[in-house]
Amino acid sequence: MKKSLGAKTILYPTPVLVVGTYDEHGKANVMTAAWGGICCSVPPCVAVSLRSATYSHGNIVRRGAFTVSIPSERFVKEADYFGIASGRVEDKFAATGLTPARSQFVDAPYVQEFPLVLECRLAHIFELGLHTQFVGEILDVKIDEEVLDKDGLPELQKLLPIAFAPETREYQALGRRLGTAFSIGRR
Amino acid sequence: MKKSLGAKTILYPTPVLVVGTYDEHGKANVMTAAWGGICCSVPPCVAVSLRSATYSHGNIVRRGAFTVSIPSERFVKEADYFGIASGRVEDKFAATGLTPARSQFVDAPYVQEFPLVLECRLAHIFELGLHTQFVGEILDVKIDEEVLDKDGLPELQKLLPIAFAPETREYQALGRRLGTAFSIGRR
Repeated sequence: MKKSLGAKTILYPTPVLVVGTYDEHGKANVMTAAWGGICCSVPPCVAVSLRSATYSHGNIVRRGAFTVSIPSERFVKEADYFGIASGRVEDKFAATGLTPARSQFVDAPYVQEFPLVLECRLAHIFELGLHTQFVGEILDVKIDEEVLDKDGLPELQKLLPIAFAPETREYQALGRRLGTAFSIGRR
Repeated sequence: MKKSLGAKTILYPTPVLVVGTYDEHGKANVMTAAWGGICCSVPPCVAVSLRSATYSHGNIVRRGAFTVSIPSERFVKEADYFGIASGRVEDKFAATGLTPARSQFVDAPYVQEFPLVLECRLAHIFELGLHTQFVGEILDVKIDEEVLDKDGLPELQKLLPIAFAPETREYQALGRRLGTAFSIGRR
């Protein structure tokens, strides 16, 4: 039997996206967002939704660029802090001791210590309501060599990304492998 | 040291979204998509990106509605099948024995056996390239009573959603709890 929870933003899993930008003075900032994901294969694009009140929102509009850094489990506290504090009043890199790295292809910084990074050129801005959706064309993906397997593919058991659960507001680790996509459903 | 993987759609985790629609004859169809996620809090909205070649794409445009059903682990094979087969030639509900349930608020079916369902009114269509992004306003969330805890909140260890890992094309379970959001990062 199903119960109605009303009109709410509930979906599992949602990602933990650490969005990197430079402000007008060139200060590197990061904020954590869970509203987003891949939205197009060709060109490869990722969407992140931010409230216009955030410091990052103005940075993306001005610079036309952002990065998405994916934290691994051991950085869950830093990722949570990035979503609580505002870059308008705090230097989040200095506060956490993490390192802003300059992107190769876009005018935005990423978190050096995080294992996976997407460098994005701002492609679209969609006003949806409380949130603005920024669609970025992914110009490059960078990954720590230590989380690649022998075939050069990302190894999830080493990368250890984090999931965010709306409504219960908790972070979860990823777990065991359930099967191969585009394969286990064939018969 | 980071290695460049090029311009690719790599992000972890991505969700496993089973999109429900009716075709022009009223036949219930479902397809699985990983490109999507929550995109706005007010109004509550979810985005799903589909190729225009899919049967579901035309259904959403015609009916102005879709659902998103979240499968639990035990339905990983069915979810994979829903992403492989086309509703143009197959009746995916009949093939899997799963049950199309009529939504309460929108003109689209959901999967009765899946624990979490979002009923969505089509709000925006954004052409991004190979994929069209459909933004749906979430009019209601329905959840199986068995996966609610004593406070009426979703219990992730009972709901058991699935994550999809691009590039390595594998499904993963969600794992252990890492902490409370908007809390563990405070100091």
